[in-house]
Amino acid sequence: MSTPTELARTHVPRLHAYTPGFQPTGSDWVKLNTNESPYPPSPKVAEAITQSVTDDGASLRLYPSPTSAPLRAQIAELHGLAADQVIIGNGSDDILNLLVRVFGGPETPTGFTLPSYSLYPVLVAIQDGGTATIDFDRSMILPVEQIANSDAQAFFLTSPNAPTGVGFTNESIEQILQSFSGLLVVDEAYAPFAEENAITLLGRYPNLVVVRTLSKAHALAGLRVGYALASAETIGLLDRVRDSYNVNKLSQVAAGAALGDSVYYDAVIARIKKTRDRWLAAWREQGWFIYDSAANFIFVEPRDAQGLIGSEVAASLFEYFKTRRILVRSFPNHALTAPFLRISVGTDDEMLAVDQAIQAWLKHDP
Amino acid sequence: MSTPTELARTHVPRLHAYTPGFQPTGSDWVKLNTNESPYPPSPKVAEAITQSVTDDGASLRLYPSPTSAPLRAQIAELHGLAADQVIIGNGSDDILNLLVRVFGGPETPTGFTLPSYSLYPVLVAIQDGGTATIDFDRSMILPVEQIANSDAQAFFLTSPNAPTGVGFTNESIEQILQSFSGLLVVDEAYAPFAEENAITLLGRYPNLVVVRTLSKAHALAGLRVGYALASAETIGLLDRVRDSYNVNKLSQVAAGAALGDSVYYDAVIARIKKTRDRWLAAWREQGWFIYDSAANFIFVEPRDAQGLIGSEVAASLFEYFKTRRILVRSFPNHALTAPFLRISVGTDDEMLAVDQAIQAWLKHDP
Repeated sequence: MSTPTELARTHVPRLHAYTPGFQPTGSDWVKLNTNESPYPPSPKVAEAITQSVTDDGASLRLYPSPTSAPLRAQIAELHGLAADQVIIGNGSDDILNLLVRVFGGPETPTGFTLPSYSLYPVLVAIQDGGTATIDFDRSMILPVEQIANSDAQAFFLTSPNAPTGVGFTNESIEQILQSFSGLLVVDEAYAPFAEENAITLLGRYPNLVVVRTLSKAHALAGLRVGYALASAETIGLLDRVRDSYNVNKLSQVAAGAALGDSVYYDAVIARIKKTRDRWLAAWREQGWFIYDSAANFIFVEPRDAQGLIGSEVAASLFEYFKTRRILVRSFPNHALTAPFLRISVGTDDEMLAVDQAIQAWLKHDP
Repeated sequence: MSTPTELARTHVPRLHAYTPGFQPTGSDWVKLNTNESPYPPSPKVAEAITQSVTDDGASLRLYPSPTSAPLRAQIAELHGLAADQVIIGNGSDDILNLLVRVFGGPETPTGFTLPSYSLYPVLVAIQDGGTATIDFDRSMILPVEQIANSDAQAFFLTSPNAPTGVGFTNESIEQILQSFSGLLVVDEAYAPFAEENAITLLGRYPNLVVVRTLSKAHALAGLRVGYALASAETIGLLDRVRDSYNVNKLSQVAAGAALGDSVYYDAVIARIKKTRDRWLAAWREQGWFIYDSAANFIFVEPRDAQGLIGSEVAASLFEYFKTRRILVRSFPNHALTAPFLRISVGTDDEMLAVDQAIQAWLKHDP
């Protein structure tokens, strides 16, 4: 009799599960560690959900649309595309997983930059696939030629980048597309906070995939909805691997309500950007290096009262934040990111609490 | 420049996506084709969902519990197990997919019977894995020795069987477990309608996995919640491959509310079984062969006015049902199942409509 571990495919017991940002169960935290929206979703979302269960929840007894058909049609119209150029995922993580499963294998490496979204290597490892990684240097200038020359079958580009927040121009993305022979996946989780996005390039580049999520700007992290836009050919490949009922009924309905209320979200996004830019400027003024942010977070390199920077300084502020019930995110595993902390943009009150903690830390740093 | 199809892993363009049962968009169908509950979920479900969005949906802005921790604890207690023996899926299809990804590969075949749940071969093909299949004969007696001697790494046993509805005894399942060297996955989607289930065997057999869904008996197909019960070692392997936030917040809350209301569901299940047994007996009385059903559907072999049976007779009744806006399911791809139709147990009114259609078909069959 073999044990389950012995029966598993040989690479599986060696896997390390992705470590998601800490999700505290108490509500007394200033939670700025996973880039959720500090503001609620459009009121139309709760309305649509409540409406869906007014019949004593009877509609829940039936399976949802397997293809999320009404939502695909709505999103296609929103972006000026055809419905067969859209696929809906159980969060954009589901979409990224499909992309890795379709294009990445042991002989067909999956590419991504370092740093970028730390889920990519986890998804590739689950697939026992090869990787082709490209390091950013501290300038965070997009290494256009290196990516274009990568032997990756599919290359994932987080744009704006996570966790630095740096946005890339369509001009540089187009340079990649003009000579890269693989599929370029532009992961636009944070694009609603940026100046540019790659959707306008879809018409001209059949090897481009744009991935979006409703977890960040649309304040629906709890509901797990993301989508990809691409050529109908690429979407057809992803649909072959997709779970047949991957998006539940309430999430489909809620996503539709959210995407239908751009007036609400435009105001929320403008407010978050204003808060972001205010504190980014304030902390730069005290001498901290901070990347320009095209996202809903600020990637800061803390400098302590002695003028020191580095991973230990970042860890010190991280721990100090925790004593004040403030959660942010650290990325100690890469030399470029280790001296930094990523602070999600919260409400004005939350950001004031963060600033007060920083000022106290600067005064009392042991 | 390669096309997306050329860039995909070579087996992917050859895949055929699983064909889910037709989900009509109109509400004027008597929909008995995908074994949904004809009755709504517990009223506590809609209450719990409404309660979750009363704050203008603000709670939806935060990620759900990545491990569905409160639901795991609740389900563990329900079945007298430890919380680390439970994993929650985005529907039981998600669980089945995890099992195939952990245990099935090109060199490590995945086993299942024919007929059984037609999703298994689809999941294995996506993984480009090998299969080890075992055919039932018309007796539908469980081929215990064949399964025990299978070289499958993981063997999926749908119990009660789909689409026949035949239930298997724990005695026969235990016989498999005593000598099978692989992992036995007992897919108990329909077990709440059966006399026995395999959960009591979990304590003695570390290579047993029991899979459950809330889509059938619990009337929550729209919300996508399933779970697996197994040894902590097996659950740990599945968690390594699981999407980090695979179950959304409302589905977690709704599942908890449903599983907390056994009084409601016991009554609903008893009612469905009573309807099932009444019509099963009535159609047998008119000379039709029907398997004993331990599920919420009836697998009938229609016999026409001329006394004929076979796949063409089944197809004739299937089409006749459609003219009366009645949807059932046919399985034309396997010799054993082709002469049959699977009719989900509906409300008493719906079943009366089915019977009236059958009687009319018997009189007017051209």
